[in-house]
Parts: sequence; structure tokens; C-alpha cells
Amino acid sequence: MRQSKLFTKTSKENPKDEQSKNAQLLERAGFIYKNSAGIYTILPLGWRVIQKIAAIIREEINAIGGQEMLMQAMVDKHYLKATGRWDIDIGFKIITAKNPEPSFVLGWTHEEVVTEIAARFINSYRDLPLAVYQIQTKFRNEARAKSGILRGREFLMKDLYSFHADERDLLEYYEKAKQAYFKIFERCGLRTYYTLAGGGDFTAGNTHEFQVLAPVGEDVTYYCEKCGYAENKEISKLKAGDKCPGCGGKIGEANSIEVGNIFPLGTKYSEALGLAYADEKGNRQPVVMGSYGIGLGRMMGAIVEIHNDDKGIIWPEAVAPFKVHLIALEGAESEADKFYDKLIKAGIDVFYDDRAYATAGEKFNDADLIGIPCRLVISKKTLENDGVEIKKRFDKIGEIAKMDATIDILSK
Amino acid sequence: MRQSKLFTKTSKENPKDEQSKNAQLLERAGFIYKNSAGIYTILPLGWRVIQKIAAIIREEINAIGGQEMLMQAMVDKHYLKATGRWDIDIGFKIITAKNPEPSFVLGWTHEEVVTEIAARFINSYRDLPLAVYQIQTKFRNEARAKSGILRGREFLMKDLYSFHADERDLLEYYEKAKQAYFKIFERCGLRTYYTLAGGGDFTAGNTHEFQVLAPVGEDVTYYCEKCGYAENKEISKLKAGDKCPGCGGKIGEANSIEVGNIFPLGTKYSEALGLAYADEKGNRQPVVMGSYGIGLGRMMGAIVEIHNDDKGIIWPEAVAPFKVHLIALEGAESEADKFYDKLIKAGIDVFYDDRAYATAGEKFNDADLIGIPCRLVISKKTLENDGVEIKKRFDKIGEIAKMDATIDILSK
Repeated sequence: MRQSKLFTKTSKENPKDEQSKNAQLLERAGFIYKNSAGIYTILPLGWRVIQKIAAIIREEINAIGGQEMLMQAMVDKHYLKATGRWDIDIGFKIITAKNPEPSFVLGWTHEEVVTEIAARFINSYRDLPLAVYQIQTKFRNEARAKSGILRGREFLMKDLYSFHADERDLLEYYEKAKQAYFKIFERCGLRTYYTLAGGGDFTAGNTHEFQVLAPVGEDVTYYCEKCGYAENKEISKLKAGDKCPGCGGKIGEANSIEVGNIFPLGTKYSEALGLAYADEKGNRQPVVMGSYGIGLGRMMGAIVEIHNDDKGIIWPEAVAPFKVHLIALEGAESEADKFYDKLIKAGIDVFYDDRAYATAGEKFNDADLIGIPCRLVISKKTLENDGVEIKKRFDKIGEIAKMDATIDILSK
Repeated sequence: MRQSKLFTKTSKENPKDEQSKNAQLLERAGFIYKNSAGIYTILPLGWRVIQKIAAIIREEINAIGGQEMLMQAMVDKHYLKATGRWDIDIGFKIITAKNPEPSFVLGWTHEEVVTEIAARFINSYRDLPLAVYQIQTKFRNEARAKSGILRGREFLMKDLYSFHADERDLLEYYEKAKQAYFKIFERCGLRTYYTLAGGGDFTAGNTHEFQVLAPVGEDVTYYCEKCGYAENKEISKLKAGDKCPGCGGKIGEANSIEVGNIFPLGTKYSEALGLAYADEKGNRQPVVMGSYGIGLGRMMGAIVEIHNDDKGIIWPEAVAPFKVHLIALEGAESEADKFYDKLIKAGIDVFYDDRAYATAGEKFNDADLIGIPCRLVISKKTLENDGVEIKKRFDKIGEIAKMDATIDILSK
């Protein structure tokens, strides 16, 4: 795509009302737009990142048998009344001109809804196990919506729900989901700690969170530097400097961002909403459930929080808005145009800075801020050698390569 | 995918509370689940259809320069106050436990929001034209949410917004959008009439709707049988049997479903929200805008309303949940398994009825109800000729073909 046609422009100043690095960089570079506290528009560059994250999530969740669907945001009172979650403060309720008494809440999670739906289709042990998921907008009335897109009041979430005949089968799937989550985060450039945590409003038992260590994070994680074992401070009896119970390694303490969580729900929701199956003897049994969440916007924020320098963002290639940023300098425009066409023909995901009214300095600064992992510059100087300058975003200096060879390398 | 693993099951009975053919078939076949009046979950089969419709929309809208993004559902009061649309009855307003006075409405359209965002990035005539769109959930407090997913209170919509220096440039783009819309609907199996209509809550001037003639439709369209000229009854002075002003053809009258609409907005929103640009002389001018909507769920409903018979749905191939429905009959299971693997390897989008506990009759009935356009049956009888029975959903009888040749045909 040509940068001259892009909807957004970068900004030199940090937004006044954002304290976190990720929100500052994402806003300045034109990935997000803050509409209200904790409520953001994902702009075209940001949407490309979110779509890449979503594609990775879909691949890994489909691979563990997840079937994608889409539940509604307007959740009727009867769902949350069934589990006593109707009056939790986190819910935004809906009123109309004619009805000031709310009968819907904006879905902040979908256990109740998916359980009622599953009850239409699950009757027998032969129907189990099953797993369904959605990538959908959630709404939560967060008291502190301060860390940019790390804690939104409206945010995109992947929520997966699994259904099992018994606890053993749930735990087997739970392990699969755990491995899928590690793959997702790793592919997106995030090192995560699998962290023991409390159940919040979801379950009485323990759950697990995937935590990314980062100073901006609102959680505190105790983690073993040797084996990676980790606990959330909220439920932990560990202290920094302790020895890890498993391996004897040293326990560290750090702020962290929760990018995902997995919950063994047991039969809480199936019992409340009448989801049961007939076992091999014909006896009715409650279905055993798990739920598994990932915040997509929060992942984007965490990636930026981890991958940046003082000039801007440094996207991991798998989630970068484009693979390559091509820059035309003065006097090389027509050659750059031709090269851009060749890159497009070769199927390379390229962003092309063809702006006639920007200086070389503005172009370089924008490229560093936007953070596409590979930069190509065509100038009068590089053309002397029929070449183009290639520079990785995290390298200080680039090197000159022949144009055709560059296309070959990038096509791989 | 194996049918034995599918989250949903078909149902023989029509849902009691649905009068429209599309809602009855989509619910019975397991494409949608009704949560509340006008509020539906899109189940895995339905989600596959919606994703195919979405992919076609993205292709055609990207081709006319649309850049995809995602705006928020929670729309702050200041946006709609600016245009006097805050207190329109269609809006669902949001309250919290601590704040019973609403300061957000659930977005039922996004002209105000996109205009404010555009004002950050559009400064000069050089920045124009631009077009951005989203595929996002809209919320409207419809008094009559009765025609299944044809009129939802919560529904997926593609909304495109375009920005221009003057009226002439808008009209040029409006024509491009019109052609893109015709392509989208045609690719999805819908014959639409481009229909002159009123502006509703959007604009004082005339607009255009894309109407599909169908008895269930809540609109009434006067259309010319010869040239296709059409007007919505709400603004029309035509009558059935009149002569068409343009070509002299006969005017017909029919109920119809509005699957899309395009609005020349002029400067209403840019003036209200301060979206202006500096022209070549440096004078500030309000930006001229257009907006363009398509309801994705409504499209799915309209397609089913048009493409069905007394046995079920007949999906057009471009939007079918799968391209091929493979059915294994008793005694041919292991051969069918092998054939299924070959189809998957050949990259064919296949749904495989491998259910051990279903009779041949149940399998055929389900296949007709679900409506995948091509059915393949493997039975002991077809295997005698190393063959498979191929039948198009709209044909009465099938024919036997060799297995390998079938894969070759389907791969094309």
C-alpha cells in the first residue's frame, strides 16, 4: 500500500493523556485512536496487526478442535441471573427510551450464554468432547482504564469454551490449550509465564494466567528464574529471593501483563443452566467445562511494550502491519515506483512511502516510529549500483543489495 | 470437517417463534441460535457463511480503496449530541451500577465517530479522497424484530465512509461504490434493484438502497421490469402498472429486503464535527462525505429466503459453508474415510457425514436441509464401480463418477 493514501498520519507529540509506552507509541504511529477512557478505535495499521494476531490464534485454536462462532454482545438478564452474576459492577447495562429498567447487560464474558446454547446440542456422552470459540468484543466497566489498550472498557477477546464428560478429559484438554497458548504467544513475540492464579468472578478454584513481565503491568508475578514456575502475587505465599519449591531456583518478582488466562470451570455453569448428558448407562451427568481467554488488543499493547526503542515500535515479523517498508528518496521516485510494482507482483506485503511532500528525515523517522521490521531505501546513491539499501528495524546500519536479489530474498 | 464432531445438530421441527422461511431454515439447520428477539448467535456453520460473505465484501471494498479499521461500539454522548442524534429512540443507552445517567449509546451507525477521527488526519486537499470501513456489530432498538435475522437488534454491518474535496468527487466515488455493491450481491447470489429512497435519520436528501425482491421483505419496491429502475414506495409516486419514466417498461410492485444502502451525506457531519481541509488557495472547506452500508446477517437471511426448496437451503457456492458434502453409507465407511482424506489433501472444502448412529435417510435429509451445493455419496453400490455419486443440491438425481476423476473436477 502507498503511504500517501494511508488514512492516518504520524504525530511527533505524545498524547497528553497516555502514560504507558504502548499507548503513546501506538497513538503517535497511527495504530489506535482514543475515543474515551479505555475505548479505542483500531485504525487501519492497527487493524492489520490485530488481523495477524487473530489469524495466528485461529490457526492454533482450530488445531485443538475449536469451532469458531459469534455470540451476541447483548446478554439477557436470565443468563447472568442463573449464576448470580447479573449485578456485578463490571457489567454495563442497557436501557431504552421506553424502558429505563435494564434487561440486558453488555457481555463481559459468555460462559452462561455458551452453556445454554450447548444444552440444545449436547445430549449424550457420544457428543463430547466439544470446543467452540469466538473473537468478539467484550465490555467491562473497569474502574481504572489507564494503561492504554492494556486495560480497556471495550476490547477484542478470543474466548474458547470446552465441554467434557469428566474432569480427567477436561484436564487433558486444558493441557492442550496451555500448549496452544504458548505457541500463540511465542509466534507473536511474547515470552509468557504460566502462572497460578485465583478464579475471580469465574470459579472458586485456581486458574492459570499467561503473564508477560513488563514494568507497566498491573499484576505482580513471582517467577522462578530456573524452571519458569510462576504464581500471581494475589494468591502466592512466595517472596522474592525464595527458593522455588520444584527446582530450587531463585524466585524473582516483577510487574506483568496478563495476556491470557485459562479456567477449569468444572460444573458450575452446566449445573446452573441445565447442561447435562446421558452417560453410557443412561444416567444424566452435568457437563464439565473449561474456558480460555486471550485479549487481542492487550496482546498488541504488550508486544509494543516489549518490542520498542526510543525511536518507536519494532514489530516481530509475524504480527507486523507490513513485512517491508519501502522508502523513495528524492530523485529516485520513478525507479522506486517500478520496484514497488515488482514487490507487489512478487506477493510481498509492502508499505511504500511515496509521499512527495515529506523530507528524507520525516520518512526515516516515520519508518522507525511505525516499526515495520524490514526497511528498503531507494535513493540516487543506491541506484548507482542498481541497488537498494536493506536495513532491519533493530539494526543500526543497513547494507546495499541488488534489486532483483532483494526480491528473491523477500519472497522466501 | 467431520460432521460427527460438529457443535450443532439439525432439528426436524420449525422453531415456534419464527415466521420467516430464512429464520426457520437457518435455525433448524444449525446456522443460528436465537438468544432474544432480534438477537442471534451465529453458530459455526453460519459463521462459515458470514466469513465468506465478509471476504467477498473485503475484496470488493478494498478494490475501491477502502481501508479496513474497527471503531468502538460504546459511543460517547458528545458524538451524537453534535448532530442531534443522541435522543433518537433507536439507541440503546448504557448505565452502570454507580452511574444511572447514560453517557454512552451503543453505536447504531458511526458517521459522527469516523468524522471526528478523520479530522485528526485530514488537513489539506492533498489528503483527499479517502475511504475507510469496518465490519462491526451495530445495535438498534427495533420496535419490530420479527423477520429472523433480516431485522436484528444486534447485527453485523459493513459500513464504509468516504471523504471528498467536493460534490463532484463524491458522486464519482458513489458510482464506484454502487458498482462494487452490485458485484458483491451478484457474487453472493442476490439479484438487487438499485432503488431511490429517502434519507431516514442520516440525511435530508435522497439515498439509494439495494433491494432484493422477496415476499418476506418489509419494504415495498416499485421496479421497472425492462430497465431495472426502482423506487422505494416510501418516497415514490409510481404505481404498479405505470410506465417507467426512463424506458417505458412496465412498473411492478413487490415486497423486498434492503440488503444495502448508500448515502450521499454532503457536509452535514463534517460541519457538525469540524472536519475541514485547506483547498489549493489555503481556504478552509468542509469535507464532503458519503456512507455505505451492508448488513451481513441480513444478507445471509436474504440468500436463504431466495435459495431454498421444501427440503431446505440451497447455498450459492461462493457463500456455502462448505463446497462439498460427503456422505458415507453403511458398509462403505472405511472407503469413505480414505476418500475424505484425499479430498482434504487436495485442498477441497469438504464436510464429511461420518456419523455412525445416523441412518441413510437422516443423512440425506440433513444434507438437503444444510444445503451444501454439491453432495457426494459413497455406498457399497457406488464402490462396485470404484465410484461416488455426485449430485448438485438443486438437481433431482445424481450420477456416478470415478473417485479420482471427482477429485480432479472438484479441485478446479
